[in-house]
Amino acid sequence: MNNFEFKNPTKILFGKGEIEKLSSEIPQKSKVMMLYGGGSIKRNGIYEQVTKALLGFNLIEFGGIPPNPEYEILMGALEVIKEEKVDFLLAVGGGSVIDGTKFLSAAAFFEGDNPWDLLTQGKAIKKGMPYGAVLTLPATGSEMNSGLVITRKETKEKLSTGGPALFPQFSILDPEVVKSIPQHHLANGITDAFTHVLEQYMTYPMGALLQDRFAESILQTLIEVAPVIMKDPSDYNAAANFMWSCTMALNGLINKGVPEDWTVHLMGHELTAIFGIDHARTLAILAPSHYRYNFETKKAKLAQYAERVWNVTEGNEEEKAKAGIEKTEEFFHSLDIKTKLSEYTDDYSGTAENISKRFSERNWTGLGEHQSLKPEDVEKIIEMSY
Amino acid sequence: MNNFEFKNPTKILFGKGEIEKLSSEIPQKSKVMMLYGGGSIKRNGIYEQVTKALLGFNLIEFGGIPPNPEYEILMGALEVIKEEKVDFLLAVGGGSVIDGTKFLSAAAFFEGDNPWDLLTQGKAIKKGMPYGAVLTLPATGSEMNSGLVITRKETKEKLSTGGPALFPQFSILDPEVVKSIPQHHLANGITDAFTHVLEQYMTYPMGALLQDRFAESILQTLIEVAPVIMKDPSDYNAAANFMWSCTMALNGLINKGVPEDWTVHLMGHELTAIFGIDHARTLAILAPSHYRYNFETKKAKLAQYAERVWNVTEGNEEEKAKAGIEKTEEFFHSLDIKTKLSEYTDDYSGTAENISKRFSERNWTGLGEHQSLKPEDVEKIIEMSY
Repeated sequence: MNNFEFKNPTKILFGKGEIEKLSSEIPQKSKVMMLYGGGSIKRNGIYEQVTKALLGFNLIEFGGIPPNPEYEILMGALEVIKEEKVDFLLAVGGGSVIDGTKFLSAAAFFEGDNPWDLLTQGKAIKKGMPYGAVLTLPATGSEMNSGLVITRKETKEKLSTGGPALFPQFSILDPEVVKSIPQHHLANGITDAFTHVLEQYMTYPMGALLQDRFAESILQTLIEVAPVIMKDPSDYNAAANFMWSCTMALNGLINKGVPEDWTVHLMGHELTAIFGIDHARTLAILAPSHYRYNFETKKAKLAQYAERVWNVTEGNEEEKAKAGIEKTEEFFHSLDIKTKLSEYTDDYSGTAENISKRFSERNWTGLGEHQSLKPEDVEKIIEMSY
Repeated sequence: MNNFEFKNPTKILFGKGEIEKLSSEIPQKSKVMMLYGGGSIKRNGIYEQVTKALLGFNLIEFGGIPPNPEYEILMGALEVIKEEKVDFLLAVGGGSVIDGTKFLSAAAFFEGDNPWDLLTQGKAIKKGMPYGAVLTLPATGSEMNSGLVITRKETKEKLSTGGPALFPQFSILDPEVVKSIPQHHLANGITDAFTHVLEQYMTYPMGALLQDRFAESILQTLIEVAPVIMKDPSDYNAAANFMWSCTMALNGLINKGVPEDWTVHLMGHELTAIFGIDHARTLAILAPSHYRYNFETKKAKLAQYAERVWNVTEGNEEEKAKAGIEKTEEFFHSLDIKTKLSEYTDDYSGTAENISKRFSERNWTGLGEHQSLKPEDVEKIIEMSY
């Protein structure tokens, strides 16, 4: 096991009715900016719950944050934050709204001229305006971590950053929100969380026995609740397990002391930036090819995963490892998530070369848990995903 | 799943050599009191590592905190803290030293006349002097939680309290300490952590799928590493998994949204207070009888535990549940931990009645996950443990 540091100060309020407690989590006399997305919170009752809980606060609103939070739009919010002297941010939404809010938390206290530098300078962010979140879409884990991903349309870029200042002060997770989420987004959420675990697990054996078992626990739970939620998202208990699993999948616990990969995400961000394919769906396109291409280095963990998560008992290590990849594809298909790029676009020719070139230009060599994958490997993996 | 709140702000520094980082975790110019136990840290090199890392700090020492930290001794430390205007406490030891330090953290900021009231008033503690810990004995989980247990010899009492102010600011967990721990204490540590998980798990099915699997993961890991550590405590990787499992067993994660029991601990504290039996060993004496006595209410979880943790595949629910209890006893025996009170003392006659009477006097009725156990049930369970 590698050495590690762990600290996660976010307070979680979990369960039905917890939104009512909002006012006791935000400092009194704060000037609060509430940020949200396309307005689904006005249809499912959450907007009403939140604004009711915040009666008495000096509250302004900033709606319209799109999926893959867009830099230009956030710059508009930043202007209002400064003009209105906002001092507390409240994200009400899914990962995109929370990531956007997190970026604004950093940007509000950024001393340089160009907040885009926060995404390109490669430095951990140590100052941020305090913020909280009301989660409306379980998926990204952003509600209990300090990372964010921002998209810039003009350059078709999707970049990430983070830092110890960027944990939410609190996040409210009410599983009752799940019942109003469309199936398409539920499938995305399950796929996203599932792949988050895989990125931190599907590397090589490190002797981190507990972290492995925790990762497997999250995968098993997602597998168990997925069909229940897809059939009946109003099943509270399934929704609660789904929601908590998504949070635990990316809150900095299961990756402690172990190697990580994240190549699937880095490649996936490019597919989203180029084609606009939903984030989670890009992961399902790329993960199976990534594991097949890197089979030799990953087969021990793939076999362990097949055994423990999918109860594969037949075959040698290699056969079990292959079964693990197939089970993963079947799982995505069971959620009606397609696993080939050509199923999303006809215009895929040249994509692999294009992304590989972008990676070279950014000096993003040395991907994967062994830092051994080069742009040409990325090209081959993406070709395998067509 | 029940509603829950979760917040654990303790920073963990985990791995070999991490003690060197001590000075960057304590505010400069602090007046630090370093607290420790019987002096084993002077023999195993940890005292030297800590004092070296703290060169330049204004450091005073307070040694001699005994297992089951004793109120009178801590009152001595409190006097020094006040006289010397100490403003940061550093526990260097196991659960007893950390619990004692935690109590001093609360006592230093307590406004009443009698700090013993902190243990009897039943209020969550919201103010405490900042403190950190260097863990030398994995077992209690005190290094990443906000609870503490204090003993008072004159009244043969052992009482607990806690509160949000009492999390350590940081804890340093270097698995290399494990190699110098005597077998007797290693066995205690494994048994203690194992039983901590059972107290939060062995209740009734609550539909908290992920919490169940996390709890099972810790049990499985402890079972896997126990024989390795007992044979060779210098096996770094086994020690690391043991250490992290002990922390995760009682840091407020696996009990979220689920019923808890803790009757075994409440009864066990009495056996320690009366006979001086090691804390962990009292748990091993009582847990099997507790599960046999409450078999009907616990059998569903006992069977799940037998299946998932011990791979028991034969038999119906009842048979599996029984096998689960037997496997637990066998596990304790494999650590050379005895499971009957009469194996520790000849003077056990009347103990059950005596403890039951104490419970009645304290108005401690309604124990267990259903709050249904009365002092007379406690009496029967303890009699079964003779």
